[in-house]
Amino acid sequence: MTHRMSLRVYYEDTDMAGIVYYANYLRFLERGRSDAVREVGCDQLDMRDRLGIVFVVRRVEIDYKAPARMDDVLTVETETSKLGGATMIMPQRVWRGETLIVAAEVRVAMMTLAGRPARLPAEIRQKLEQLLPSAA
Amino acid sequence: MTHRMSLRVYYEDTDMAGIVYYANYLRFLERGRSDAVREVGCDQLDMRDRLGIVFVVRRVEIDYKAPARMDDVLTVETETSKLGGATMIMPQRVWRGETLIVAAEVRVAMMTLAGRPARLPAEIRQKLEQLLPSAA
Amino acid sequence: MTHRMSLRVYYEDTDMAGIVYYANYLRFLERGRSDAVREVGCDQLDMRDRLGIVFVVRRVEIDYKAPARMDDVLTVETETSKLGGATMIMPQRVWRGETLIVAAEVRVAMMTLAGRPARLPAEIRQKLEQLLPSAA
Amino acid sequence: MTHRMSLRVYYEDTDMAGIVYYANYLRFLERGRSDAVREVGCDQLDMRDRLGIVFVVRRVEIDYKAPARMDDVLTVETETSKLGGATMIMPQRVWRGETLIVAAEVRVAMMTLAGRPARLPAEIRQKLEQLLPSAA
Repeated sequence: MTHRMSLRVYYEDTDMAGIVYYANYLRFLERGRSDAVREVGCDQLDMRDRLGIVFVVRRVEIDYKAPARMDDVLTVETETSKLGGATMIMPQRVWRGETLIVAAEVRVAMMTLAGRPARLPAEIRQKLEQLLPSAA
Repeated sequence: MTHRMSLRVYYEDTDMAGIVYYANYLRFLERGRSDAVREVGCDQLDMRDRLGIVFVVRRVEIDYKAPARMDDVLTVETETSKLGGATMIMPQRVWRGETLIVAAEVRVAMMTLAGRPARLPAEIRQKLEQLLPSAA
Repeated sequence: MTHRMSLRVYYEDTDMAGIVYYANYLRFLERGRSDAVREVGCDQLDMRDRLGIVFVVRRVEIDYKAPARMDDVLTVETETSKLGGATMIMPQRVWRGETLIVAAEVRVAMMTLAGRPARLPAEIRQKLEQLLPSAA
Repeated sequence: MTHRMSLRVYYEDTDMAGIVYYANYLRFLERGRSDAVREVGCDQLDMRDRLGIVFVVRRVEIDYKAPARMDDVLTVETETSKLGGATMIMPQRVWRGETLIVAAEVRVAMMTLAGRPARLPAEIRQKLEQLLPSAA
């Protein structure tokens, strides 16, 4: 159950060191997670507007292994190693071909729009369970 | 030897959850580190243009403790806990008053513009040593 | 009635050309506008949460006159040349000392959170009138 | 000779108004221009590293016609209406299906890495000429 998406590096992603700015990998990782949850039927805009809940990131560990440059085509890999009542653990990797660029582990939780922790509604949880390895 | 800087949250920093987007804290942390090294005389543009070296982030651990919102005034705290031959460890925190928003530890290294690891030149190292607790 | 604010250029703002990325000036301009409206008592978060309305930009004309670089301290100037029933015209400039970096004109309107055009509520309009030249 | 590319709106692109932040369309437009010039063989990283020149934007006029939201799939259209000795005029549009989201005109020039205006080298110009309507 590894989700893969491709993206290209643009001018907007680089900094004056000539490489992708370190914060921008968190944008790339979020694109990977958003695509992964969308593919199992989880609509984050609907979650916000209808249920008043959003995913929030609680913790990130990220290792920058090699720099990426303008026009590079990168692959973002997203896995879901754990799905609790209110939290998901998602290991993610960014590759350029066989070169590992970034390795990360992201802990995601649910929050109400008022900022309070929330539990995963059953309808959302059921969808996200498809991301687990055991769902394969 | 804790460096503190203030910044305000703007529209650009928020996302559709109404809070600061998680990647943007890495921008805030970099502002804190850049101000801290500038204050001890380290000019990153000169390092790049004259010495051909740049700081690169190797690893970040970041915990998101509480959300921040539009117009919030935040304080970024930056410390330097270790200065090796080619690496610095910098614990950082973001506060809104007494509320801890983000706690992070950032490992920074030096890289040549060609992408190779570099050692800290003596002239830079001497400046950065002022950031260490023992320099107080 | 020219509002002025200072900001510094950080790594996050630069691109692989070694200068501030062109889209980021729109972030700088918004910081200027947000500070200007905050200073006359206009709280954009409250507008959104209590009144369900937000400012949206309808049009920007922007001329890039000179590049800015890492660590530059820039001044954002914001004026309000016209305040209609639903629209504001705001000329803005970015300077580095005596050097003009960017000149822009921004048209701002009001929108409901559902995406429909809205008129300026009287309580907001009254505040924004202080931004007009005639208010001096 | 209209270049078209698709992109999706992610969390990173939205702001607390729940729509794409206005500056981010300039990132989308640059992706369109970068893809268009890459397709005619123009490698911006090579231009920078080998020739010491980069594209810089001199002027943007942009009209925001309708808001875009999370998960929207947008099409960026890029044309080249004029190619001078040192400048290109590029009309661009962003669509969501049949709905016009953004209409813009972008003036691009060449700059040396030292910040001086540059003329288009013949080898680059020859490639860019393929973007002109007359090249069809």
